[in-house]
Amino acid sequence: MNKGRGLFVGRFNPFHKGHLKAVQHILEQEEEIVIAIGSTQQSHTVSDPFTAGERLLMIRAAMKEADIQLERVYMVTIPDIHRNSVWVSHLCSYCPPFTRVYTNNSLTRRLFMEAGMEVRPTGPFNRTDYKGAQIRKQMAEGTKWHHMVPKAVWDVIESIDGLNRLQDIIHESD
Amino acid sequence: MNKGRGLFVGRFNPFHKGHLKAVQHILEQEEEIVIAIGSTQQSHTVSDPFTAGERLLMIRAAMKEADIQLERVYMVTIPDIHRNSVWVSHLCSYCPPFTRVYTNNSLTRRLFMEAGMEVRPTGPFNRTDYKGAQIRKQMAEGTKWHHMVPKAVWDVIESIDGLNRLQDIIHESD
Amino acid sequence: MNKGRGLFVGRFNPFHKGHLKAVQHILEQEEEIVIAIGSTQQSHTVSDPFTAGERLLMIRAAMKEADIQLERVYMVTIPDIHRNSVWVSHLCSYCPPFTRVYTNNSLTRRLFMEAGMEVRPTGPFNRTDYKGAQIRKQMAEGTKWHHMVPKAVWDVIESIDGLNRLQDIIHESD
Amino acid sequence: MNKGRGLFVGRFNPFHKGHLKAVQHILEQEEEIVIAIGSTQQSHTVSDPFTAGERLLMIRAAMKEADIQLERVYMVTIPDIHRNSVWVSHLCSYCPPFTRVYTNNSLTRRLFMEAGMEVRPTGPFNRTDYKGAQIRKQMAEGTKWHHMVPKAVWDVIESIDGLNRLQDIIHESD
Amino acid sequence: MNKGRGLFVGRFNPFHKGHLKAVQHILEQEEEIVIAIGSTQQSHTVSDPFTAGERLLMIRAAMKEADIQLERVYMVTIPDIHRNSVWVSHLCSYCPPFTRVYTNNSLTRRLFMEAGMEVRPTGPFNRTDYKGAQIRKQMAEGTKWHHMVPKAVWDVIESIDGLNRLQDIIHESD
Amino acid sequence: MNKGRGLFVGRFNPFHKGHLKAVQHILEQEEEIVIAIGSTQQSHTVSDPFTAGERLLMIRAAMKEADIQLERVYMVTIPDIHRNSVWVSHLCSYCPPFTRVYTNNSLTRRLFMEAGMEVRPTGPFNRTDYKGAQIRKQMAEGTKWHHMVPKAVWDVIESIDGLNRLQDIIHESD
Repeated sequence: MNKGRGLFVGRFNPFHKGHLKAVQHILEQEEEIVIAIGSTQQSHTVSDPFTAGERLLMIRAAMKEADIQLERVYMVTIPDIHRNSVWVSHLCSYCPPFTRVYTNNSLTRRLFMEAGMEVRPTGPFNRTDYKGAQIRKQMAEGTKWHHMVPKAVWDVIESIDGLNRLQDIIHESD
Repeated sequence: MNKGRGLFVGRFNPFHKGHLKAVQHILEQEEEIVIAIGSTQQSHTVSDPFTAGERLLMIRAAMKEADIQLERVYMVTIPDIHRNSVWVSHLCSYCPPFTRVYTNNSLTRRLFMEAGMEVRPTGPFNRTDYKGAQIRKQMAEGTKWHHMVPKAVWDVIESIDGLNRLQDIIHESD
Repeated sequence: MNKGRGLFVGRFNPFHKGHLKAVQHILEQEEEIVIAIGSTQQSHTVSDPFTAGERLLMIRAAMKEADIQLERVYMVTIPDIHRNSVWVSHLCSYCPPFTRVYTNNSLTRRLFMEAGMEVRPTGPFNRTDYKGAQIRKQMAEGTKWHHMVPKAVWDVIESIDGLNRLQDIIHESD
Repeated sequence: MNKGRGLFVGRFNPFHKGHLKAVQHILEQEEEIVIAIGSTQQSHTVSDPFTAGERLLMIRAAMKEADIQLERVYMVTIPDIHRNSVWVSHLCSYCPPFTRVYTNNSLTRRLFMEAGMEVRPTGPFNRTDYKGAQIRKQMAEGTKWHHMVPKAVWDVIESIDGLNRLQDIIHESD
Repeated sequence: MNKGRGLFVGRFNPFHKGHLKAVQHILEQEEEIVIAIGSTQQSHTVSDPFTAGERLLMIRAAMKEADIQLERVYMVTIPDIHRNSVWVSHLCSYCPPFTRVYTNNSLTRRLFMEAGMEVRPTGPFNRTDYKGAQIRKQMAEGTKWHHMVPKAVWDVIESIDGLNRLQDIIHESD
Repeated sequence: MNKGRGLFVGRFNPFHKGHLKAVQHILEQEEEIVIAIGSTQQSHTVSDPFTAGERLLMIRAAMKEADIQLERVYMVTIPDIHRNSVWVSHLCSYCPPFTRVYTNNSLTRRLFMEAGMEVRPTGPFNRTDYKGAQIRKQMAEGTKWHHMVPKAVWDVIESIDGLNRLQDIIHESD
């Protein structure tokens, strides 16, 4: 195992099983992980239905359920800066120093690469199996979605009346 | 012990012994604590010399040194919103739900009070013993400051060349 | 009649007959109304062709034409904050205290509901009869639109060369 | 009497007798007045203790007490834009068209002058008799201030616990 | 030839032959030109792939290649302000005073016209021959695009690995 | 002579003889210079009385008067970002690539140094001989200031009624 600290960036709306697999994969490669929760200024929208605090709750609950040691995990909440050219600096200022970045997003990879940082894929998992947009759509439509997120995340979503919120949001944005 | 979750807000530039005593006091009253690190968009200024990530490092290191269980602690990084009338909502959106607020700051107390929340003092400690502004001043001037911050915080400050940074900042703002 | 103050939120681009009916309905239920004009930072766009000042002129003219007493009406101009989680606080800070909210928008209803406020529908009127987007489209295309807005609003639109403006905006955004 | 519409800009924290005299003076010169309430994003600070909605309440109450017809008065709430070079355009976008500006502030006069607008003094009254900063200071210190504001404004300040708020704010900013 | 200074506004992502013809046309009409590079806060997006600095490099290289005297050219870099009602003032504050505006964009024409300025078309050239959106699309798809931009611009794009950047951006935004 | 491109950052309110000496010094060391005009969103304040466009005019006029070739000079206008941790990236995104930075400001030096860039002093000149704050003060007070700025700058200041503007600004901020 590497002795480094890996960065993992996402919006986590909601935190799903693909995210969890990526976290576990990174923790096999690195001693510590920094989970950077982005777009934290957003909530109650089709893309970002949950607040930063709610997303933090989901991730913490999923970590506990999966027996991941908190000593190895940093979580940070980072608002958007809407400027790609300064985004890497912005993100770095919110994080403890990290050794490399794990991402499957080609823009994220490019921005870190142009800043001279090492980037790796988040793992051998199929990115299309778990897509936030798809999960949110199914939550709003009332079709099957539970199998795509860790069980601990269900409870958080229920405790905040999350399904009704999503339906109100999507109904208005039609 | 209360079964609630207490909120503790600060800028933590740097995290000092007064902060640590407050955290310990709150953890005697509540099951969990939310440490909200504010003004995270700021760094390299006289008031906020450290980045959000650096402050997070300091707090984590101090928690470990003081044997505080991470399972009981949430940390969130929150940028300023520069609007007192929405500050409580802004802060709440970044935090998991909390039961009450601990603060000795009269404006913070008033804003939470006007929002209908319960507010308590951070403890029986003298706020003037450990003041961030005083510590930063002494760091920049090169006079004795180590006794005011947890030992673990020294190391973080040294690892980021913090004293020289402070002196450069203060020199220019004269 | 209720002795309260009802809030009515809109962008009013332009103020149309559906808005007027809602105002009259609310004034049957409440002693006073607060008309909150939103998105005031916007103008000269497809969604918000008119400035805040122009929209204010339209509403005032329509109030006068409909013999509504200004003593019972507050009007406030409120810029967007682009943060759903603080939007209720933001809006409240611009308004005199109000007793309840009148809206047919499901997101607005949810945000006020999550903030613990009472929300009622704007009245028994069909929301689809008068839709701002439809009116703007017809204004830009040069098809019949006058029957959908109070007569007093025509004059304001004419005085600011509103039709030509809309056509220039829509032409460019194609 | 002039047939125009005069603009009067202020922050009105609080609305005091000097403001009232200026309004009355302008209404002797013009048919209508636009009262532009500025810095509306601010509240709970030493300079701007009151929210935009609270300031609106004060002004409406004072208008009523002074028997000023609402038909002749427009009130608009305008956030700061922190850019002097666009401030006149910003302000104009929030207001119905106006004929001239009344101000005793030399920067405001210059900005409107550079934009090619007519500017007049707010009247033959001594600006130093009623100064917001002085009134706020006396409110916080608990010394005599009531004689400087219209009686109707007292009630609004009391209804929002305004004196205690000011003391909390000023205490913290020491 | 006119003795004035003409304004030419664009985003120049990238600077193409249509832009160059417009510059040459304006310099036949006016003594000097102000080239205002807009949306400078943006980069690494589908609409604005290049940074302000990179766009400046392209324009300078193209000027040199086309033997245009720098003594007659001002270049300014201007971030978006996202407020149409103040956009003209915003733009003017970044530019040396100019005599008239050259544009084929109907919204730009309207905004300057409402501000009382003279507006002329950018020339007898067909706007659809060279469209930034089309060029970016062809760059990302790997189809022929070189013939649409000045040769000097190719070199800048190559020196910043521009084609790969565009492909990464577009791939992610699908 | 070095074959690089040197960066020189300032607010240039106004461009004075110390700035000119620095430019000449850098052009002895480097093939090209990038003059970055900062705080361009500001004007009509005590610290930044001139608009970005006016400062650009001053610098161009002074370059011409001093026979500096425009082929060797890039000028960019850069708004503040109010975030020290991303300021270097922000600035770089507005500039063509540069080889090293010339500054006597200890905070600027530190920020570039932490970003891994080479920094040099602006030259053997005494920074205290020409200070913008001192020049603005003397302009506002009507005492001797002409000897501190290039003659070409006088004309620009006169053409924009600069002295009266400064006096209006300073009078109001007392």
